[in-house]
Amino acid sequence: MQWYFVAALLTLLTSSQGILTTLSQTNGRYKYDYATVPFLAEIFKLLVSGFFLWREIKSQSSPRMTTEWKAVRLFVVPSIIYLVHNNVQFATLTYVDPSTYQIMGNLKIVTTGILFRLFLKRKLSNLQWLAIILLAVGTTTSQVKGCGEASCDSLFSAPIQGYVLGILSACLSALAGVYTEYLMKKNNDSLYWQNVQLYAFGAMFNCARLLWDDYSGGYEKGPWWQRLLNGYTFTTWMVVLNLGSTGLLVSWLMKFADNIVKVYSTSMAMLLTTVLSVYLFNSQLTVQLFLGIIICMISLHMYFAPVRMLVDLPATSKSVSSTLKEVTVENHE
Amino acid sequence: MQWYFVAALLTLLTSSQGILTTLSQTNGRYKYDYATVPFLAEIFKLLVSGFFLWREIKSQSSPRMTTEWKAVRLFVVPSIIYLVHNNVQFATLTYVDPSTYQIMGNLKIVTTGILFRLFLKRKLSNLQWLAIILLAVGTTTSQVKGCGEASCDSLFSAPIQGYVLGILSACLSALAGVYTEYLMKKNNDSLYWQNVQLYAFGAMFNCARLLWDDYSGGYEKGPWWQRLLNGYTFTTWMVVLNLGSTGLLVSWLMKFADNIVKVYSTSMAMLLTTVLSVYLFNSQLTVQLFLGIIICMISLHMYFAPVRMLVDLPATSKSVSSTLKEVTVENHE
Repeated sequence: MQWYFVAALLTLLTSSQGILTTLSQTNGRYKYDYATVPFLAEIFKLLVSGFFLWREIKSQSSPRMTTEWKAVRLFVVPSIIYLVHNNVQFATLTYVDPSTYQIMGNLKIVTTGILFRLFLKRKLSNLQWLAIILLAVGTTTSQVKGCGEASCDSLFSAPIQGYVLGILSACLSALAGVYTEYLMKKNNDSLYWQNVQLYAFGAMFNCARLLWDDYSGGYEKGPWWQRLLNGYTFTTWMVVLNLGSTGLLVSWLMKFADNIVKVYSTSMAMLLTTVLSVYLFNSQLTVQLFLGIIICMISLHMYFAPVRMLVDLPATSKSVSSTLKEVTVENHE
Repeated sequence: MQWYFVAALLTLLTSSQGILTTLSQTNGRYKYDYATVPFLAEIFKLLVSGFFLWREIKSQSSPRMTTEWKAVRLFVVPSIIYLVHNNVQFATLTYVDPSTYQIMGNLKIVTTGILFRLFLKRKLSNLQWLAIILLAVGTTTSQVKGCGEASCDSLFSAPIQGYVLGILSACLSALAGVYTEYLMKKNNDSLYWQNVQLYAFGAMFNCARLLWDDYSGGYEKGPWWQRLLNGYTFTTWMVVLNLGSTGLLVSWLMKFADNIVKVYSTSMAMLLTTVLSVYLFNSQLTVQLFLGIIICMISLHMYFAPVRMLVDLPATSKSVSSTLKEVTVENHE
């Protein structure tokens, strides 16, 4: 399978995630406990990966699996980072409003690039750095509501803690992605075995979170397993399947492509969701969205197009072109 | 003199043009006839160019001057284009509001690139095309006011004639620039002689315009020469000198650099004016301005930086690097 096919599929599924979540509401409210959705998605991913792992084990060529605890325990780290991230996110939202938080979220595109360089030692060309900054600028442009509304004053007027926490949040989000890529690529273990470890810890942490929510809520709504599927409709199940599937695609990309590909997929998905919302929910088509789409498309082209295509090296210097082809492969794997 | 020095000076003077014009108002109104400013600026440019031409003629090496009418008459064309452009601009503004007109004005960055390619047969790399589109997107981003204000509805709701005229206006503006570059570069004539021809026609057309304004206004305010300097202050004279100087710098760039350099200079000037207005006139610093500046800076870097710097060709392949140096010069002259 080609990475760009998986990336395109991730874009489609991620963008339908927002649409499905909105459609799963009844009169603008959730009739089910939304916190149960990520838990069921983890279970779904665990079952799917477990099934494929079982098939691999049954087949002639048994899959590579590292089963020492020393290696397995590393797979708990992403869950821990996400746990910290969720709390930082919660803390940030006590200082800044949701639209400012959304704008600051685009910072994770740049922090992913930085951690990608620092921790995974992956070199990017200057052009690719510019493309990454442009992607963040483009997604931000599409989200800016403009002045005349409350968002204009609030954007620069939140307390400094809000911005520090927002930056921390962007770093944690990037760290989780980069660490997962490190885990998936550090050996030749079967993707399904790596997934099983990742999602087993994920399911445990999500389950712990539901328990904690019940405990901190004084068990007012009863224990979570009693209301697990309360209010679930067909659309709610679609949300679960969708969230699970995007998770599986992200895992695949972490092993066979990289974090930058994932960042592009999800950014494009955000734009696609906004465009679809114009048609589906009659939200306003803004100039900012239009400009943001152009910027992100240019960024995509700058990052992934072969260098030769971008700089139009003249056909006369054949030797340069052929040498550059190799360079291109090195730079744009 | 280096072209980037002239371009930087043009940026500074163009951005102070907006500031000076605002400062030349008394209580938000012009106490002088603004239509006289371009006329006096043409006279200033004519005098300066005439003086330098006279010095060249006096010196040992007499300047190259083509004086046949067949060649001289070509210098009337830019004045005619500007005359048509002014009328199209006026017509456009009867269909669209000024802020939409300003937004559409950024289209001339792209039309300049297109006419530059078509009429002057100058090749641009794909990366440079992307940079030009980004420059237009960046300047537009900095100007978008956002929704919640009147501009949001009006931006997509003007009659179709408004958009057609706006596109025509962008084409005419680009055509004037590209044609002037063609004139200045088509032979080795002295820049000052070319300027004298250009500004002589310019002064005539501006004079005709003042006469026409008087005629169509029924001579209510008397003939223009009687009120030429009415209400002129020191600042008004600065506006005249500034407008004249920017014109001279543009002429220089048309002969020794090109239209794209000019487009970058004036776009950067627009951003600089907006930033300065925040400090000088307490206008609001918006996220859009911040994003627009980043986009335009990336565009600038993409257009003018050497290809080698952008794509980080590895130092190991020495032969490629040295060959590319020549390629760079070809592509980014």
